[in-house]
Amino acid sequence: MKNTELNSYLYETIAAGFTQQILSAVLITGDKLPSVREICRQYKVSMSTALQAYYLLESKSLIRSVPKSGYYVSYTPQTNALPNQSNPSLYIGNENTSDIVSKVYDGISSDHIMLSLGVPAAALLPLPKLNKALTHALHTLNENGSGYEHVLGNPKLRRQIARLSSSWGGKLTENDIITTAGCTGAMLQAIIALTKTGDTIAVESPVYFGILQLALSLGLKVLELPTHPETGIEIEALKTALRKNKISLCLLISNFSNPMGGTMPAEHKKEVVRLIEHYHIPLLENDMYGDLYFGHDRPVNCKTFDESGLVILCSSVSKTLAPGYRVGWLTPGKFSAQIRQVKFAAAISSTTLTQEAVADFLERGRYESHLKKLRTTLNHNCLNYMEAISKYFPGETKVSRPQGGFMLWVELDAKVNTARLYDQTIKRNISFAPGRMFTLQNQYNNCLRLSYGLPWTDQINHAIKTIGSLIR
Amino acid sequence: MKNTELNSYLYETIAAGFTQQILSAVLITGDKLPSVREICRQYKVSMSTALQAYYLLESKSLIRSVPKSGYYVSYTPQTNALPNQSNPSLYIGNENTSDIVSKVYDGISSDHIMLSLGVPAAALLPLPKLNKALTHALHTLNENGSGYEHVLGNPKLRRQIARLSSSWGGKLTENDIITTAGCTGAMLQAIIALTKTGDTIAVESPVYFGILQLALSLGLKVLELPTHPETGIEIEALKTALRKNKISLCLLISNFSNPMGGTMPAEHKKEVVRLIEHYHIPLLENDMYGDLYFGHDRPVNCKTFDESGLVILCSSVSKTLAPGYRVGWLTPGKFSAQIRQVKFAAAISSTTLTQEAVADFLERGRYESHLKKLRTTLNHNCLNYMEAISKYFPGETKVSRPQGGFMLWVELDAKVNTARLYDQTIKRNISFAPGRMFTLQNQYNNCLRLSYGLPWTDQINHAIKTIGSLIR
Repeated sequence: MKNTELNSYLYETIAAGFTQQILSAVLITGDKLPSVREICRQYKVSMSTALQAYYLLESKSLIRSVPKSGYYVSYTPQTNALPNQSNPSLYIGNENTSDIVSKVYDGISSDHIMLSLGVPAAALLPLPKLNKALTHALHTLNENGSGYEHVLGNPKLRRQIARLSSSWGGKLTENDIITTAGCTGAMLQAIIALTKTGDTIAVESPVYFGILQLALSLGLKVLELPTHPETGIEIEALKTALRKNKISLCLLISNFSNPMGGTMPAEHKKEVVRLIEHYHIPLLENDMYGDLYFGHDRPVNCKTFDESGLVILCSSVSKTLAPGYRVGWLTPGKFSAQIRQVKFAAAISSTTLTQEAVADFLERGRYESHLKKLRTTLNHNCLNYMEAISKYFPGETKVSRPQGGFMLWVELDAKVNTARLYDQTIKRNISFAPGRMFTLQNQYNNCLRLSYGLPWTDQINHAIKTIGSLIR
Repeated sequence: MKNTELNSYLYETIAAGFTQQILSAVLITGDKLPSVREICRQYKVSMSTALQAYYLLESKSLIRSVPKSGYYVSYTPQTNALPNQSNPSLYIGNENTSDIVSKVYDGISSDHIMLSLGVPAAALLPLPKLNKALTHALHTLNENGSGYEHVLGNPKLRRQIARLSSSWGGKLTENDIITTAGCTGAMLQAIIALTKTGDTIAVESPVYFGILQLALSLGLKVLELPTHPETGIEIEALKTALRKNKISLCLLISNFSNPMGGTMPAEHKKEVVRLIEHYHIPLLENDMYGDLYFGHDRPVNCKTFDESGLVILCSSVSKTLAPGYRVGWLTPGKFSAQIRQVKFAAAISSTTLTQEAVADFLERGRYESHLKKLRTTLNHNCLNYMEAISKYFPGETKVSRPQGGFMLWVELDAKVNTARLYDQTIKRNISFAPGRMFTLQNQYNNCLRLSYGLPWTDQINHAIKTIGSLIR
């Protein structure tokens, strides 16, 4: 039975209601849930729909069934406080952190438990189907995919990306899209097209370290703005920054941001679009995590409200399908001519084979069902990782509460230095991302980012326990 | 029988001697060659070696056998004069040519005879073996190649590239190499690392239009220097430019340059290295065509003479194996830290699967034998294309005489405008690259670049005839 209004099934609606009650601690561990029969009566649904709702909650480890007794809540949200809203200085920092970035990412070894990695584990990816798509591409593409693509990118892929845009209220066509080598390639090309050496860009703080490295490489100044762990960049701070500074570009990860996990409320997104229109400044919006929502609906993005073409949306399949395929895209909006020239000059062509493989995977409708599974797993991981942190880390530890994506931002006692902590954990083959990587200022030294892209296992539990004991 | 001194076979040495006599018109069409028996006596070789030498010359269409009579020269070099040494103005041009670049490259259609394409036809590529290598990569790579590579690139690929460096006298190790998305990705990353908006780079003129588009995208000024169709950039002009201007980077295609086809003599290369050391300016050397030599030996490059680490060599397999695989590399030299940071920020990882496929292909020793065949075919194409131009284009037409690569630079009467000529030829489904694309100044309007990467056929002959008649 399909509730077409909400584009989801009734059992999901029922499960979502209980999820919210559990996550807000209205229902806590040990509470008994209504019987399946009561659910049928209350929601006017069939027995199988009621059971499906409970199975879904079980799969997320929120409830458990006790034979011959019924269903009980098995999860109570961690009691860690939220990290503080960040408060970066408004001076332009320029303390390069590439040393620490190298330290964390160069020594990658298969022995390590990589809680530092910003990609989902291969176990969560649909590899057999992707391999099939790649083999299909190899055999069906003209010249076996050895040649260049059109400069704008694979037309089938662009059509599929356009189709998927309806999930956030977009009405893109294939002509609104240029493909790129991952979201990194998209950000690179847009930034090259829209800035020059010495320009200032405004970003969240903490901000994904790749953005900082990119800005430094291109000789840009980075204005880091106060950011809230739940609602993202502070609108008032952005407003002041735009009024007082000459900003060439705003760059935001609007949903389930990396690293802090916040999602800008729709009204904030609308307001940001209004602001950049007022100041006539392009917004580069990275919505790479938007499809990985735990809630009922996919959040919108700023592009949803864009009528001027000033919002350049970029995304990829690097967080959902295959990082190593290097498949990403952007919507150049009103900067179409400039960005197209940069794509040609900076890349000529994307990798023909992997673009076609992803296009094929999407065209067969495999993406949606994969995402559904991936979201459930990540949500489950998130809850388990948070519970372990609450159990093993000191009581004053603050932890973000992301509603999607796969990053936790952890704020420790001010005395803890996570760069030094890293030197300890890596000796035990455990890697995480020290907070200092996510800023060009001297801050977040007591913070760290943990990715929950690795499936929840005893080994992970033990790794978090180890980090916790090293902190103490 | 192997002549190890020269690292080639005796039959090749014998054939090379005749090739030189034919190309310099010492022997002309109809001249009878020594009998196979005489060759055996003269060179003290076996009958089969003598025959192999003649077979090689036949395969290049330089000689033909007349049954029961012997071997005869079947080729006399074209009589077209060489194009003039270029004489660009020393003012910094900034007339963007992206309109004309778009015109030529956007409307690519499989119906067109693409004499404009700077890549070899798929028919010249070892596709079945590449497909095998790709399938092998898919099945042997960790996580089916869905994950990121190490930031420096696939170690096996870097080892193979290091191994091949001995062909130009290099002694690279895998640690001297960073892989990139094609040579374009290599140039992009090096230029980002070593320049900032407003800086000036010195290049040949005419210069590959992708370099101009890249420079414009990054806000760089381009100093175009006089260039000779046989010996490349004029050393005296470069010397003066370095003395009089603040140059941040020199960028040269030192062997079989695109588009003019010149190869800098070894002593010029040595002198360029001395000059950049004197002024302490990095040289970005693109040697993408160096393996496609028609002569006896691979030419050296500037990197061969580099002791300071100021020469950043870049190359790719886009002109020899598979453009769409996006496999290239560079040697960062003394700029290792900067370029590595840019690679991380601008790409994170190359496409994992295609890098491994190329590594596998090289490791199996398939590259050398493929290159040998490819060189013979391109040499054969080159001679046929030149002959057709000499036959069908007006007598005053000047044509370059490349000793490798696959580009011909054609200079027509000053009154001919090749951008307008293009509008005519494209109506007949024939595409070439108008000369105006290769400069930011108002010059080369009467020039064009023809690629001979397409196998020689009646259709190509007819296409060149059509261009010729449209010129007249």
